[in-house]
Amino acid sequence: MTKKIIYSVRPFREEFIEKMKEIAPDYSFQTEVASDELSEIEVSIGWNREYQEEVFASDHLKWVQSISAGVDNLPLNEFADKEILLSNASGIHVESISEHVMGIILGYSRGLFQAQRAQLKKEWLGSAIHYQALEDQKLLIIGTGHIGKKLAQHASVFGLECIGINTSGHPVEGFKETYPLDRLKEILPKATIVVNILPLTDQTKGLFDAKVFEAFDEEAVFINVGRGPSVKTADLITALEHGELAFAALDVFEEEPLAEDSPLWEREDVLITSHIAGQTPHFQTKFMDIFLKNLQSYIENKELEVNEIDLNEGY
Amino acid sequence: MTKKIIYSVRPFREEFIEKMKEIAPDYSFQTEVASDELSEIEVSIGWNREYQEEVFASDHLKWVQSISAGVDNLPLNEFADKEILLSNASGIHVESISEHVMGIILGYSRGLFQAQRAQLKKEWLGSAIHYQALEDQKLLIIGTGHIGKKLAQHASVFGLECIGINTSGHPVEGFKETYPLDRLKEILPKATIVVNILPLTDQTKGLFDAKVFEAFDEEAVFINVGRGPSVKTADLITALEHGELAFAALDVFEEEPLAEDSPLWEREDVLITSHIAGQTPHFQTKFMDIFLKNLQSYIENKELEVNEIDLNEGY
Repeated sequence: MTKKIIYSVRPFREEFIEKMKEIAPDYSFQTEVASDELSEIEVSIGWNREYQEEVFASDHLKWVQSISAGVDNLPLNEFADKEILLSNASGIHVESISEHVMGIILGYSRGLFQAQRAQLKKEWLGSAIHYQALEDQKLLIIGTGHIGKKLAQHASVFGLECIGINTSGHPVEGFKETYPLDRLKEILPKATIVVNILPLTDQTKGLFDAKVFEAFDEEAVFINVGRGPSVKTADLITALEHGELAFAALDVFEEEPLAEDSPLWEREDVLITSHIAGQTPHFQTKFMDIFLKNLQSYIENKELEVNEIDLNEGY
Repeated sequence: MTKKIIYSVRPFREEFIEKMKEIAPDYSFQTEVASDELSEIEVSIGWNREYQEEVFASDHLKWVQSISAGVDNLPLNEFADKEILLSNASGIHVESISEHVMGIILGYSRGLFQAQRAQLKKEWLGSAIHYQALEDQKLLIIGTGHIGKKLAQHASVFGLECIGINTSGHPVEGFKETYPLDRLKEILPKATIVVNILPLTDQTKGLFDAKVFEAFDEEAVFINVGRGPSVKTADLITALEHGELAFAALDVFEEEPLAEDSPLWEREDVLITSHIAGQTPHFQTKFMDIFLKNLQSYIENKELEVNEIDLNEGY
């Protein structure tokens, strides 16, 4: 009999491996596989490009559980062709990303990043600092899923008014107004803080281009914790240079790591973080909440209980 | 007849001067006074040390409305001797200070200050960043007045557990537990984030000294938005050097501006802000809310309706 392998690109604590064994006693959990085992991988936690060709060559792979919320880097067409199930890790990063965004909103609004730059020059700014009241800001959240909803909840306690944008414009709890994505340019001038949390799809690739930045309020802050390729970096830099917006906080980039010669590094109106918004100390626990639920339903009836990706939509 | 003067150390918008005239038509509002007018000042908005001697020499001064919440820099003993009323501006800065503190808590917990330091070196940190979940932190708020309560409200939405310390240890809404100030050292080890918001009094001067820092959790963050002289800076630096706490964010200092040769500037485990936590764009509106209420009651019966300071307690 062929071995059935659950392959994972990363290790998990013993307590979770024990739980996998209880649910799926016939499967072997492996973070390393010999070359002759690649064809025996039936479930993959994360995706290893080096193994891709051999794994696809066999017909054993049935389910991929992505470790991240975004699945745009995965071979979705091949998964669709081969009827491989795909689930993502959406939900795990909700608190972390919302806290990251609120940290940027508060830090910018209270002049903390400006203060830290002054500190490095031993400069006492006194009141020569940019500050603004949160209650005067309007927050446009582009993407009203789990993260967007949590962010609206966090922001509301500070009196921030939250407007949402999603594909269809359907109303979402916690948002005063919601609009469809195709009205983005028309809605942007209303906002002083603009947060992109959209996944990367054909519709969102290059979405933030010169024309979109032209529609920004010149005092506005742009925060991208969605996907790097949703923003045309060169257009963003031009827009900042022309004063079409005031500040950008970027956690994701068209290319990562950000190239050392990128002009973004030196801009005082840019805060760069290294794709860390989703980092959470409770990753394993939260991830296994999703994976073990899906493993149970997969074993029972080859279906996924939560977070299944529609391979045609890409999210 | 002698003129009656309301002197102010700073100007206010015409709309507010109009309102003062309506309430107190017999008084002249002046931001500048000739030397022979100093004896005619009956009400002072803010305090001008240069005028102090001459103002005290006459018996016309009846009421000082402080522009800040802290009144420790004012001649409280002379006010008491001469039965001069004193009111402060407590309440105005509530949102600003709470937003400042939350900006620090979130910025530190999401690694944003570390990220900005890395950016200036064009360094892509990847996941080599310190981050922590807010829901795992315990926030000790020392001072449970207006600001402390607002902070507890802001913090709770992120799942932070809030413990309070006040003079008597009386319970306060929004705090899970409250303790009296004399139990500070015993309570400190429970906290991972410690915020000082206390006014400066005989009891709080030099409160944060070597022995108090010894009681901190070594992972803890200390945030001072209260008063500079409540902290013995040299003891804080030693404590940071010995790893008795992890990070300090200081908005107030024993001497301001902070001296250029202070070792605090260069510490990576210190964030310096230049006494800006209370800066608010709505200062005039909020301040006049307090002052005009008091002016009304002062005109009617020589009493202050809100924010009167007990000159024996000093707050």
